[in-house]
Amino acid sequence: MAIFIRHCKQLLTPLAPGHGPVQKLTDAAVIIEEDRITWVGFDNDCPPSEDGDLVIDATGQTVTPGLIDAHTHLVFAGDRSDEFILRTQGATYQQIAASGGGISRTVTKTRDTTAFDLLRTARPRVNRWISQGITTLEIKSGYGLSTESELKLLRVIRQLKNESSIDISATFLGAHDFPVEFKDNREGFIQKIIKEMIPAVASDDLAEAADVFCESGVFSVEESRQILETALKNGLKVKVHADELSPLGGASLAAELHALSADHLLCITDKGIQDLAKSETVAMLLPGTAWFLKMPYAPARKLIESGAAVALASDFNPGSCTIDQFSFILMLAALYMNMTPDEILSAVTVNAAKALGRELETGKIAPGYRADLVLWNSPSWEHIIYHPTLNHAGKVFASGKLIYQSEIWNECLFL
Amino acid sequence: MAIFIRHCKQLLTPLAPGHGPVQKLTDAAVIIEEDRITWVGFDNDCPPSEDGDLVIDATGQTVTPGLIDAHTHLVFAGDRSDEFILRTQGATYQQIAASGGGISRTVTKTRDTTAFDLLRTARPRVNRWISQGITTLEIKSGYGLSTESELKLLRVIRQLKNESSIDISATFLGAHDFPVEFKDNREGFIQKIIKEMIPAVASDDLAEAADVFCESGVFSVEESRQILETALKNGLKVKVHADELSPLGGASLAAELHALSADHLLCITDKGIQDLAKSETVAMLLPGTAWFLKMPYAPARKLIESGAAVALASDFNPGSCTIDQFSFILMLAALYMNMTPDEILSAVTVNAAKALGRELETGKIAPGYRADLVLWNSPSWEHIIYHPTLNHAGKVFASGKLIYQSEIWNECLFL
Repeated sequence: MAIFIRHCKQLLTPLAPGHGPVQKLTDAAVIIEEDRITWVGFDNDCPPSEDGDLVIDATGQTVTPGLIDAHTHLVFAGDRSDEFILRTQGATYQQIAASGGGISRTVTKTRDTTAFDLLRTARPRVNRWISQGITTLEIKSGYGLSTESELKLLRVIRQLKNESSIDISATFLGAHDFPVEFKDNREGFIQKIIKEMIPAVASDDLAEAADVFCESGVFSVEESRQILETALKNGLKVKVHADELSPLGGASLAAELHALSADHLLCITDKGIQDLAKSETVAMLLPGTAWFLKMPYAPARKLIESGAAVALASDFNPGSCTIDQFSFILMLAALYMNMTPDEILSAVTVNAAKALGRELETGKIAPGYRADLVLWNSPSWEHIIYHPTLNHAGKVFASGKLIYQSEIWNECLFL
Repeated sequence: MAIFIRHCKQLLTPLAPGHGPVQKLTDAAVIIEEDRITWVGFDNDCPPSEDGDLVIDATGQTVTPGLIDAHTHLVFAGDRSDEFILRTQGATYQQIAASGGGISRTVTKTRDTTAFDLLRTARPRVNRWISQGITTLEIKSGYGLSTESELKLLRVIRQLKNESSIDISATFLGAHDFPVEFKDNREGFIQKIIKEMIPAVASDDLAEAADVFCESGVFSVEESRQILETALKNGLKVKVHADELSPLGGASLAAELHALSADHLLCITDKGIQDLAKSETVAMLLPGTAWFLKMPYAPARKLIESGAAVALASDFNPGSCTIDQFSFILMLAALYMNMTPDEILSAVTVNAAKALGRELETGKIAPGYRADLVLWNSPSWEHIIYHPTLNHAGKVFASGKLIYQSEIWNECLFL
């Protein structure tokens, strides 16, 4: 049985990673067979369906590839609203971390929470992402910081992946912070990551990639390099939390190591921009975090104009970005980073796919690609960016299956 | 039949308009009889229920007065996402207005839309507000700008009020802009408002108050005064869109005329602040608009410290703020205006009630007040501010009736 999606008001798809043209077809159709897209074009040219095929009328709807959120920390325990309130009264994120708050607080709470309970709280979060048109989702560990609890988190992510109808990519982020028991023995913790954690993660195939928080007071460039080179030797791909709070050089390190992505980049230098532009490493921007931490936004325009491929992600986590509405990230990119609607679409489809090593699998609507797509109850892609507080996802397909459908058509639209 | 709400984890209520203390009761109870609150206190002291009473267990829930959004433009037609995209590429709101976009574009579309269709699109918006714990809602006209179409809008608002389970307050905003047919005859339009529109609105009892967009290029202070004095003579209350894009002196005019509120205030002067602080006029801040227009935020701290009563509202409209998620406004107030959680609660309850002339009716949880309250699926009021992209409303009571209930308990919370 094939699925025919007919009369899409407008179908938008990037053609390749980077910021080349976005193809726009008015009155378009798509055919899905099994888990693949087998045909896309103008509705007029659509081959006829046969008995037993499913035909879906997408009149009035905007159709895009399934969106990809390639940077989240959505498995965690605990609430840090009190720290948020302290920040609104003048405390900085770094001050709060120094006084026992921050990541280490989530680590304590997450260590004390069973895998069962972590799964119970993470599952509805994944469903919330699905309902917003996300069909590929990255989730990082990093709130365990001991071998046992990092593996616990990665097993929770594996279980989410097994249960879920979308594609979930796990990242090992043991180098997210130094746990309290290693505060005075940094080298001991790095050796633990290198000698114990990475081999365990790799041998159980619990993650596709390793990530490091390369930052002043956390992991230096040299420490990050040591950890990431070990990950590469163990068959993991790598990525870097780079130049977030200070211009340490993480972007250049990411480019040097052929990392999938360099993430954050609020403080990236001109050299870092050049290094990324010359590389295949994706510039992963997380404007929700800049907004939440009241930091200057990453230089999206400079990155794009230098030739880097920019992706956008949520960075959802309890300390530096609680935004679990993905369209809000799109709006921040438009309003505060001056990205165009086409650039934003590429950033959350093909470029995010590339940042997860999936650019030949998903992120565009083309024959042979995985049938991940969204029929939006919205007259245009621009409207979704402009009116982000409403969830416009109408029908979500992942690997050819209809996994979410809104009961509401055109509610609260500006008609 | 009385309704007993038992074992509220925490019940928060301001005691009076302004920024005095917020009362916080742990393990609290509330009794509702008919449309009124008849008792509130510690659960231990709660009088016993009788056969036939309804007892609701609020264990784990945070309870506040029903929230009040006292500044919206939610009856309109048309989409202005293209203007939003132009702004992200460098155009200003004023430039867009000057080239035929802006308010006048919504006016054209709204004039061309029937009352039936306006009602059809506004109704789900009102329901969306209700689902977020709003039990009192102001809606302005102002996209008609002819007698006929202003009355059409006010009749739509009256119909929403009649249909709805919440309290809706209508405001006449004929002085929102100069319509294209009066561009070269400003005085003619002002005379039309004064001689034709206001008397018609007042005689049909279609609005509680009149409002004016007092701004450079729109209505001057003198023109605003003339219109508002006419409104007062016709028995309407008054309010002012004041000092939004330039420091014209609207706040001082509002104070002088004993207006219910002076709204926006992004550019308020020190004199304006003093005038409001000495008056009974509420300072109505709309941080979503500052965010959406990338303007500096209103000086909330200075206003509060000077003694003004600050309220917060959404300003929902298609041109300068499309944010239809009220908690997002609360977060902006915390993060970008440094308001405390207590100040924010007073701003969206007692102070907003005062801005609608309802401070003796709603906005606090106390015997004799209207039974408008929200049971939040949230461990604290702070959590709602910190995690605003999720709708935390669990049960919403308006005038003693349970009008909204979420099927989801604790989904996506940070436990």
